[in-house]
Amino acid sequence: MVKLEIFDTTLRDGAQTEGISFSVSDKCAIVKTLDEFGVSYIEAGNPGSNPKDMEFFAAASHLKLSNAKLVAFGSTKRKHVPVDEDSNVMALLQAGTPCVAIFGKAWDLHVTEILRTSLEENLSCVRETLRSFKDRGREVFFDAEHFFDGYKNNPQYALKVLEAAAEGGADVLVLCDTNGGTLPLQVYEITKTVCGKFPDMRIGMHCHNDTGCAVANSILGVQAGAVHVQGTFTGIGERCGNADLSIIIPSLQLKAGYQCVPGDLKKLYETEIKIAEITNLAVPNNKPYVGESAFAHKGGMHIDGVDKVSDSFEHIDPCLVGNRRKFLLSEMSGKKAVLLKIKDIAPELTKDSPVTAEILEKLKELEHRGYQFEAADASFELLVKRIIGKFIPHFGLNMYKASSEFPVPEGENSSNAMVKIMVDGKAETTAAVGNGPVHALDAALRKALCVFYPELASVHLIDYKVRVLETGHATGSRVRVLIESTDGHNKWRTVGVSTDIIQASFAALVDSLEYKLCMEEAK
Amino acid sequence: MVKLEIFDTTLRDGAQTEGISFSVSDKCAIVKTLDEFGVSYIEAGNPGSNPKDMEFFAAASHLKLSNAKLVAFGSTKRKHVPVDEDSNVMALLQAGTPCVAIFGKAWDLHVTEILRTSLEENLSCVRETLRSFKDRGREVFFDAEHFFDGYKNNPQYALKVLEAAAEGGADVLVLCDTNGGTLPLQVYEITKTVCGKFPDMRIGMHCHNDTGCAVANSILGVQAGAVHVQGTFTGIGERCGNADLSIIIPSLQLKAGYQCVPGDLKKLYETEIKIAEITNLAVPNNKPYVGESAFAHKGGMHIDGVDKVSDSFEHIDPCLVGNRRKFLLSEMSGKKAVLLKIKDIAPELTKDSPVTAEILEKLKELEHRGYQFEAADASFELLVKRIIGKFIPHFGLNMYKASSEFPVPEGENSSNAMVKIMVDGKAETTAAVGNGPVHALDAALRKALCVFYPELASVHLIDYKVRVLETGHATGSRVRVLIESTDGHNKWRTVGVSTDIIQASFAALVDSLEYKLCMEEAK
Repeated sequence: MVKLEIFDTTLRDGAQTEGISFSVSDKCAIVKTLDEFGVSYIEAGNPGSNPKDMEFFAAASHLKLSNAKLVAFGSTKRKHVPVDEDSNVMALLQAGTPCVAIFGKAWDLHVTEILRTSLEENLSCVRETLRSFKDRGREVFFDAEHFFDGYKNNPQYALKVLEAAAEGGADVLVLCDTNGGTLPLQVYEITKTVCGKFPDMRIGMHCHNDTGCAVANSILGVQAGAVHVQGTFTGIGERCGNADLSIIIPSLQLKAGYQCVPGDLKKLYETEIKIAEITNLAVPNNKPYVGESAFAHKGGMHIDGVDKVSDSFEHIDPCLVGNRRKFLLSEMSGKKAVLLKIKDIAPELTKDSPVTAEILEKLKELEHRGYQFEAADASFELLVKRIIGKFIPHFGLNMYKASSEFPVPEGENSSNAMVKIMVDGKAETTAAVGNGPVHALDAALRKALCVFYPELASVHLIDYKVRVLETGHATGSRVRVLIESTDGHNKWRTVGVSTDIIQASFAALVDSLEYKLCMEEAK
Repeated sequence: MVKLEIFDTTLRDGAQTEGISFSVSDKCAIVKTLDEFGVSYIEAGNPGSNPKDMEFFAAASHLKLSNAKLVAFGSTKRKHVPVDEDSNVMALLQAGTPCVAIFGKAWDLHVTEILRTSLEENLSCVRETLRSFKDRGREVFFDAEHFFDGYKNNPQYALKVLEAAAEGGADVLVLCDTNGGTLPLQVYEITKTVCGKFPDMRIGMHCHNDTGCAVANSILGVQAGAVHVQGTFTGIGERCGNADLSIIIPSLQLKAGYQCVPGDLKKLYETEIKIAEITNLAVPNNKPYVGESAFAHKGGMHIDGVDKVSDSFEHIDPCLVGNRRKFLLSEMSGKKAVLLKIKDIAPELTKDSPVTAEILEKLKELEHRGYQFEAADASFELLVKRIIGKFIPHFGLNMYKASSEFPVPEGENSSNAMVKIMVDGKAETTAAVGNGPVHALDAALRKALCVFYPELASVHLIDYKVRVLETGHATGSRVRVLIESTDGHNKWRTVGVSTDIIQASFAALVDSLEYKLCMEEAK
């Protein structure tokens, strides 16, 4: 089992992602989460170019970490400036981290055209900068910027830059595919060459995803001899993102015989969700290992197979990464999938129970009307509970009216809605406005229900999808509305179908709030 | 330049994606788009397991394709059933496509545990099924299901299955990583071995993305000798998706010396957007090559510096795939893109016309507000005509009111709408009911307009799509409505955007009717 170093740069390179910014408290929360998961290094800021990062490093010095060391990032010293007078070097020292990552040019073109200095001068900038941090007891990573492009253009010079870094005392030589354009085979071959030339050095990978190969390139780099992998846990980063550690770690640890973190990976899923939440990012459903659908089965054939030989249709057991298997209900999946799913909700039912037949019949009827429960677990659960008599509604709906007009009257909203509900014989009628009829209806319904169930105040919608089911009649067609809700901890999805988009949305809203109330009750 | 075959399975394997379903008209539109882009094969359904696909193949037989051949998909014949009596084989023949893709087991474990037959019987199922299609003049692809898992478990048997397929007359042997769990190096090495064993056969790749390596695995397969690549254009597919052709194609064609499609890749971006729109799917901003931010640059970068050594910061020139640098949106390249689009509408405009700049500016503003014109040609044409002064509106809209209620009063519709329009100084006010507010509004608007323009009676909508643009605010978000209309001869698409779904739908309806009136006038 070769031990690898996992180096997370969510808070430095990841922070360059469009639309993403971290507060000091976000940063501390992510550092703690990554440390608990077990990464080796956390690169958390660029104090030379971002003075606000200094504030974070001051706060972070009080964090007690069990697995990870903090890293500050900055560039080699400027040309013709003594290293001890370079402002960036001084800022990096001031950050007070046990480790520093120093980036320097490895592409001759960038030395002459961007730095506008000589190739020799660049080498001594690298050597001197690293030496100065080593002399002060820091662990030093050298990020060889544009290494692969540099190697393709002038291999001798790219290797000379690495030699200069080694002479300066670098602990790790990190090969960066800065613009993300190098394809896997070339990454593998070049990394193999470098590992051969520097047999006594730790070699690292820093890949970007501009050809969709950052994960593969990182894995191939390791298989070529690298022992240090840089990336961001959720894959965020400039342009197309950095190498995604949540995919690289399980691939290397579960499939290729490397040890990435101490212990097992059962917290992978939870760690991903936590970091994504703090980053205010949705985890794509189809994301490898950690996506909601990463282990979903749809085709009836596959479901049959998973049941027969569980590992024959899944590349790993989802439990190994804290995720779970999911059976989707659809025209293609058949009875078996439904049975597997019902088993979770009502374990007492067998495939021969009359109630099971009733559920299947109802499901068939609803699917025929355009319902689709494969992505609406919460509605499915309510449906089953209704049929088996385990569901007692928390409210009744007497009526709603929603309207929308054009032109929008000066200073008004385009839409308004009125609702009347009943809870334990008490009626509540209220109204709300919104910038669309569904928005207004959602607001009015929640307003009325919060009178009785204040816990619904924490519920809000995070996604709202509309699908028109039959074409040919177009605006007279049935629509299916799928909504995703959260209370800050859990997420659930519900569905509604009608020819009237407002009615379909309303049905999904009602299911969502009922589901939350059922969860509260179960506590 | 090695020529490759690109085989798109959006409409078959992609259709297994959670939450995705295609209508027959969606399928035809995607086939046409893929054909225009230049893929070689389009796998479009599984007639044996999905009777609805038969309807599509009947419709598709009238499509005139310039580059692509249609493929129907199905399994090898069942054990102990004569091939000519196998229902799946008969359904496949009935689909009438020039090509068929037949999948068969390549993993010994699946033969014995899932098919529950002998290893020999499986080989003859493969051989006989393929032979029967070859004898009927079909081009035959053999999809060796779970090939990589099979090879890892029992290489001799996995190769025997390929031999049986070759003996049966297969034109291409497709190596499938069905559960997506094989890592790149192993894919490369196994594919190389297979190519060595079958030097005279075309070898294909069919990869899934469960380790985030489907793109890399496909590329490595080609570099190991495969000449045929299967995937879905937007990467959709069960679980974590299929290999993403929109990433594989430019990587191989621009970086590795392969020819994937005839001509250049300037339509890559546009093709991606179009297929994603029809699928009702958002293209992630960080998607390689085609994402909005794939070529976005850091704020601090000097534009003149980038110009000098532009390829030093970008792995390819974004123009090569029809995308653009984010900060150069209003620069010359943006103008050129617009000019190409308006060539047919206003051939008199040059890149230096002030009107061109005005169109570009307006387009930028509308796109910022969530409009998307790639799939809404009719709205784009009206937009250009409005700006260049070639558009005289055929009617004015004074007001509408639409409302929806629950419960629906006995014998009534759930919704009603009132509109007031003006034509040549004459007003017409009318109302209509419908089974949803948009349906009612559509009926009322057409009723009022038909008083002046009876030719509008032939227009009806054939598709209506709704996309929620920003999540996080859910029902308060902006929605984009895309509608497709027909008059029985022509078809056109229009778009509307608003936070109010009724308003967005109305804008798209108005554009649709105006477009029809413009067409009538041009006659």
